[in-house]
Amino acid sequence: MTHDKNVETLNWIDAGNFSQSCLRMIDQTLLPVELKILDCRTIEIVWEAIKMLRVRGAPAIGIAAAYGLCIGLQPLFHDGDEPSETEFFDKLKASHDYLAGSRPTAVNLFWALDRMTAKAESLRGAMPPSQLADALLAEARLIHEEDRRICRAIGHHGAALVRDGDSLLTHCNAGGLATADYGTALAVFFAATEQGKKIHVFADETRPLLQGARLTSWELWQRGIDVTLICDSMAALVMRQGKVNAVFVGADRIAANGDTANKIGTYGVAVAARAHGVPFYVAAPVSTFDLTIADGNLIPIEERNPDEIRCGFGTRTAPAEVRVYNPAFDVTPAELITGIVTEHGVISPVHCENIATMINAG
Amino acid sequence: MTHDKNVETLNWIDAGNFSQSCLRMIDQTLLPVELKILDCRTIEIVWEAIKMLRVRGAPAIGIAAAYGLCIGLQPLFHDGDEPSETEFFDKLKASHDYLAGSRPTAVNLFWALDRMTAKAESLRGAMPPSQLADALLAEARLIHEEDRRICRAIGHHGAALVRDGDSLLTHCNAGGLATADYGTALAVFFAATEQGKKIHVFADETRPLLQGARLTSWELWQRGIDVTLICDSMAALVMRQGKVNAVFVGADRIAANGDTANKIGTYGVAVAARAHGVPFYVAAPVSTFDLTIADGNLIPIEERNPDEIRCGFGTRTAPAEVRVYNPAFDVTPAELITGIVTEHGVISPVHCENIATMINAG
Repeated sequence: MTHDKNVETLNWIDAGNFSQSCLRMIDQTLLPVELKILDCRTIEIVWEAIKMLRVRGAPAIGIAAAYGLCIGLQPLFHDGDEPSETEFFDKLKASHDYLAGSRPTAVNLFWALDRMTAKAESLRGAMPPSQLADALLAEARLIHEEDRRICRAIGHHGAALVRDGDSLLTHCNAGGLATADYGTALAVFFAATEQGKKIHVFADETRPLLQGARLTSWELWQRGIDVTLICDSMAALVMRQGKVNAVFVGADRIAANGDTANKIGTYGVAVAARAHGVPFYVAAPVSTFDLTIADGNLIPIEERNPDEIRCGFGTRTAPAEVRVYNPAFDVTPAELITGIVTEHGVISPVHCENIATMINAG
Repeated sequence: MTHDKNVETLNWIDAGNFSQSCLRMIDQTLLPVELKILDCRTIEIVWEAIKMLRVRGAPAIGIAAAYGLCIGLQPLFHDGDEPSETEFFDKLKASHDYLAGSRPTAVNLFWALDRMTAKAESLRGAMPPSQLADALLAEARLIHEEDRRICRAIGHHGAALVRDGDSLLTHCNAGGLATADYGTALAVFFAATEQGKKIHVFADETRPLLQGARLTSWELWQRGIDVTLICDSMAALVMRQGKVNAVFVGADRIAANGDTANKIGTYGVAVAARAHGVPFYVAAPVSTFDLTIADGNLIPIEERNPDEIRCGFGTRTAPAEVRVYNPAFDVTPAELITGIVTEHGVISPVHCENIATMINAG
């Protein structure tokens, strides 16, 4: 593979005509072995791409679903046809329900589909179906653009924490592959680099599913950022060697007090960072905060399939009979977090009042 | 596979007659998928077993080589033949040199071969070759027995630190597969269990080569000890959950001040243990101390093949072009070590004076 800075996770390829355009995406299931570009020209292909994790990450799934609805409407407009309003809304509902079945547990999928349908309903009767279709495409582009703006703003605020020459460390993949194009933790690295700062990044491989090895090292390398891949167990050593100036990670869910659930292993990195006096930052949009949860003790820890650990990469690596504990994520307490980088700015120190103030600033 | 507590890493199978006996070993390359027993009846098979890592771990390699010399002498005694002394010593030297080429970097290999040859030389002229052969077999059994006694003594001293009901954590494989039959860190678990204490053990899988998943979880499960396999990145979480009462690990090399080199990831476990108030013990024979090294800063850190991380288990998991840092081990500073369990007793607190006193006690 060669470096190509122009490849985006998701992209609407405008053919100058609604019914001929398509959704282009990176097929993430083949990374890092192959960079395959998938042009989705039917709703079935979009459905399959979401189902099979060719596109993954909450924001990216939402964006793909929004564009997917537009692709579902395209057959109504082939050859310059103009469907009736009833035909249009019937097709929209069928497409909505069809895509909703692709990954029934993905919250952003429903959020995006509902937002698109609500947009169409709000315009019902006000314009012909061809204009409704254009309005829906504009809404999908807006969802895409909003996510891009949030990532850019996180990158902007986070980059101010990065100095020229810094060596940084990240865990898992909080990168552009999960979002519109820029990521959250990785947005900080991209923005710092765009500001002309020369940085180096250690990427934890992130067992068991190796998102750091498969995706983060690929994304950083692909954008020309100096990256070194390490096993999770090496993070403490490189900190002790003085090679890490700061840690940036993403977040799955943040409690009202700042306790942060993220990919398993994040907590161990935070403990090591504290022991070595290394600042530890979380980068996440304010939508990641769940203020209904007082603290991290109330976040249940999901366990995943033991064979992710016993049978890594298609090879048996432990006896089938051996018990496994395979938590999907852990919770890093707020007191270990130097700051939380959001699209509105950096929350630091991390506590309830500062969090509430920052969220209300948005 | 079924539990079988009688399978030993290495065992001399006595046929009642020197030339018909053999060296039985577990072929560790097939673990944990298959428990294959290999009966070595020619020196070529012993050579191949050492070369191909069917037997591994410094003490175990030394023992295999000592028995291997005996097997090399067997052809001289087939059918009740009695060779000349010259024939005997020529064959001994040829066998010594042949086995020495199996793993030229294994210090214990040379140590054991030299000890066996020195034994034979000390008896030259004092007895006929058939009795020399018996004396060499007795020396090999002594090397084996000495290692077994050291492991048992480490287990005995370490078990005193374990309470009934404890949940313990270990990293990598410091078990019986690397030694005569009992290991060092794992000896503590075996001895505590034999004392009737009920324990539970978390085994870190130990990336990149997964000795914890492949060997430790297998050894503990095979001996009926309650074991849970986790990824290295989960150790800090289970400590935070209060599920770890103490950590026991092995050692590759210990400096005069107690700084301990061991498998990569050990240091991160020690940092997490300190952060959670969990005692952290090293279990190792006094032969592991290198008093010529003042402290851990003087221990060079060997780097291994990057493809151990980029291509785990035969599958590409990271771009071939991505840089990798793959240190074979790390150094845990003495101040993070609660105690060092040796065959003479437990060194605690860990500092130069206590170490020197314990070594001189031997």
